[in-house]
Amino acid sequence: MKNKTKNEACPFRLRASRDALEIIQGKWRIPIVISLMYGTKRFGEIQRDIGDVSPKMLSQELKALEENKIISRTLYDSMPVTVEYSLTPLGHSMEKLLDELLNWGNHFRKEIVGK
Amino acid sequence: MKNKTKNEACPFRLRASRDALEIIQGKWRIPIVISLMYGTKRFGEIQRDIGDVSPKMLSQELKALEENKIISRTLYDSMPVTVEYSLTPLGHSMEKLLDELLNWGNHFRKEIVGK
Repeated sequence: MKNKTKNEACPFRLRASRDALEIIQGKWRIPIVISLMYGTKRFGEIQRDIGDVSPKMLSQELKALEENKIISRTLYDSMPVTVEYSLTPLGHSMEKLLDELLNWGNHFRKEIVGK
Repeated sequence: MKNKTKNEACPFRLRASRDALEIIQGKWRIPIVISLMYGTKRFGEIQRDIGDVSPKMLSQELKALEENKIISRTLYDSMPVTVEYSLTPLGHSMEKLLDELLNWGNHFRKEIVGK
């Protein structure tokens, strides 16, 4: 067996990454944020962007993102009442992370799926 | 209600991001990859880096990462037999994504937790 360098991983890096992972976990949160990168939207418009998310799940995930201050929900006192979702500055700060996710997703697809 | 630009999210972006998300999903895969960024390691060394992962879960997640060609597993015919894990080139290609995850995790912590 070759002699290899074995350094312990930086606990600071591990913690920060786990914080981020906790926020973006699951199948729907990142797609929701990507959808709202394209502008303020109503519930049905987000659902249309994502395609295969159930209303119940979308509603739950929007709530979680709102609690974490990634998106904001605005209620308009119109007839009928209108609700719109948009990214907060914290939500917009995810843009570079999403770009890297996209880059790596493409790379992975090319390497593994081969197209 | 103001008139706002409402563009549909790019389906290509959504698909690539979902590919990437599927690979890194869960609490442990990213920490495992971070641990192995610091060098080839044995099971116990990875477990020590991460801290609170159970052996059963770690074993399951290492297997999933191996199936997706993110890590490789090498068996040494020593006494006792030794198993080592390391990142493949595809695993190493996650470095920029992990950096952004770390950056955003720090930013999020400062904004929300306030420290």
